[in-house]
Amino acid sequence: MRIRILVTGGTFDKEYDELSGRLFFRETHVPEILRRGRCLLDVQMDTVMMIDSLDMDDAGRATIVERARACAEPAVVITHGTDTMVETARALAAAAIAGKTIVLTGAMVPYAFGSSDGLFNLGSALSFVQVLPPGVYIAMNGRPFPWDGVRKNRETGFFEPVNP
Amino acid sequence: MRIRILVTGGTFDKEYDELSGRLFFRETHVPEILRRGRCLLDVQMDTVMMIDSLDMDDAGRATIVERARACAEPAVVITHGTDTMVETARALAAAAIAGKTIVLTGAMVPYAFGSSDGLFNLGSALSFVQVLPPGVYIAMNGRPFPWDGVRKNRETGFFEPVNP
Amino acid sequence: MRIRILVTGGTFDKEYDELSGRLFFRETHVPEILRRGRCLLDVQMDTVMMIDSLDMDDAGRATIVERARACAEPAVVITHGTDTMVETARALAAAAIAGKTIVLTGAMVPYAFGSSDGLFNLGSALSFVQVLPPGVYIAMNGRPFPWDGVRKNRETGFFEPVNP
Amino acid sequence: MRIRILVTGGTFDKEYDELSGRLFFRETHVPEILRRGRCLLDVQMDTVMMIDSLDMDDAGRATIVERARACAEPAVVITHGTDTMVETARALAAAAIAGKTIVLTGAMVPYAFGSSDGLFNLGSALSFVQVLPPGVYIAMNGRPFPWDGVRKNRETGFFEPVNP
Repeated sequence: MRIRILVTGGTFDKEYDELSGRLFFRETHVPEILRRGRCLLDVQMDTVMMIDSLDMDDAGRATIVERARACAEPAVVITHGTDTMVETARALAAAAIAGKTIVLTGAMVPYAFGSSDGLFNLGSALSFVQVLPPGVYIAMNGRPFPWDGVRKNRETGFFEPVNP
Repeated sequence: MRIRILVTGGTFDKEYDELSGRLFFRETHVPEILRRGRCLLDVQMDTVMMIDSLDMDDAGRATIVERARACAEPAVVITHGTDTMVETARALAAAAIAGKTIVLTGAMVPYAFGSSDGLFNLGSALSFVQVLPPGVYIAMNGRPFPWDGVRKNRETGFFEPVNP
Repeated sequence: MRIRILVTGGTFDKEYDELSGRLFFRETHVPEILRRGRCLLDVQMDTVMMIDSLDMDDAGRATIVERARACAEPAVVITHGTDTMVETARALAAAAIAGKTIVLTGAMVPYAFGSSDGLFNLGSALSFVQVLPPGVYIAMNGRPFPWDGVRKNRETGFFEPVNP
Repeated sequence: MRIRILVTGGTFDKEYDELSGRLFFRETHVPEILRRGRCLLDVQMDTVMMIDSLDMDDAGRATIVERARACAEPAVVITHGTDTMVETARALAAAAIAGKTIVLTGAMVPYAFGSSDGLFNLGSALSFVQVLPPGVYIAMNGRPFPWDGVRKNRETGFFEPVNP
């Protein structure tokens, strides 16, 4: 099974700029994570954008939807900032892309900072995408959430189930 | 869904003894990995043994089978050294434990060494165990292998499919 | 020889707040660095303040000078943000504290981010402070600079010699 | 001041071979450590050998002595396994190399394992070598020991002073 990874940025890919002392985006760390995970899946990766998900707007979501629809693979993993991941999942679900399993994931700690949840989460998302039926899901905190059954709790930073 | 993790050691949990300069086992790193992965699954963990899988014998396998059979959870993840992981999977399959999804995983690099595949692999195994039908599987290199369709290639260190 | 370490914050001690996505201060990492460095020096550590050195003002500098003067040890290491480290060194020199070797150091990358220069720099500062004659110095980039012979090049992030 | 670094191996440079599960030597990590430490010293590095210091013999020590004598720099740092570091320091002292400050250092935990004392120790050794008078020293645990005033305590793994 071939898998497409669409990279959109988020905490996952933030780095520390030692000159300005700020967090910024450079290249995605997804290829390094796949190497570290010794992943042998047939993966095709595209960097669609590199933004903080607080900056994600309708045009950005339309681009992601279009890329998810256009790709040839039936399994799509999208790395995305956690703050608006649920909204992007909703836009993907609204697009009713037939026959594809789409899993969004992200990280609460940048991969570059050593103690990130990114490696665990990408391992999780790549696994769910291989076995879940077509639909749109969020993989965070070890769980697979249906797109309409989850919210991010901003007090705790954890994703939790809600009634659709 | 409740998940049982059975810890048996393997490279996953090896550490460096700074006095002797040798690798050894102390405590398992699974709880630390779950914290780093910000995992919120309902997990019950038991340390069954802490051994190099080259030292795994029939008695050890019988113990693992018994623990997998006895636990109340329908989903079981077993951390295990990679060298004889397939043999233990076979013993579990031979035991024909009804109604349980059992996923074995491990690591090629100790978790304590910073660049380990352990975090990715545990994220992967915990995901597969939630969605695969009952049976015995090996989760390595991002893939879910049926117990009788996989071998470890000792030249490359990767797991690869074989015809059952 | 007893050494006093005065902690004032700086990039050295910044951490990532996973809820807000911002860098902040919590506890200093100096004790952890000393443990990792397996340091057996007779060190007494005080957290004087925990601030970004861009927020360091005259009152803050006066506090640092007072603490450096008041402590019993003849060797003082001060961890400090790099942006205004030279100014604080100048304030210490102006105070003309007799008989003490004072070494300021810091980091360009937070210790918590894994690839920090903090461990190297603290090893360096603790070494210089044991052997340099009384005076005020900055230890960065492996070098011991006299307080009036150095500036931080903000383009490169490196400290470089200037004529006093 | 120009500094020569002579690399001889030791725990400092050990890595984990994921196929055999053993520790081995590949390339030295000294250049990476210098980069991480953002070191701007004028350093010339030679890999003299890459061995466990338990395998260091008289011929090896003679080679190290010869290289320390032959190099043009007045400051020499030698990375060396800790087990026989004191013996090599003695051989260097016996050679009575005039006008050079020679500092040996090492690590108790491999640099590649993330929690190593190597970064701290190299920062320390490179600092001592710039300011100590000519002679042979060991820099471990944050301290500068004269070659004839130190031993490694094999129970604790720490270096401690002894009467010459």
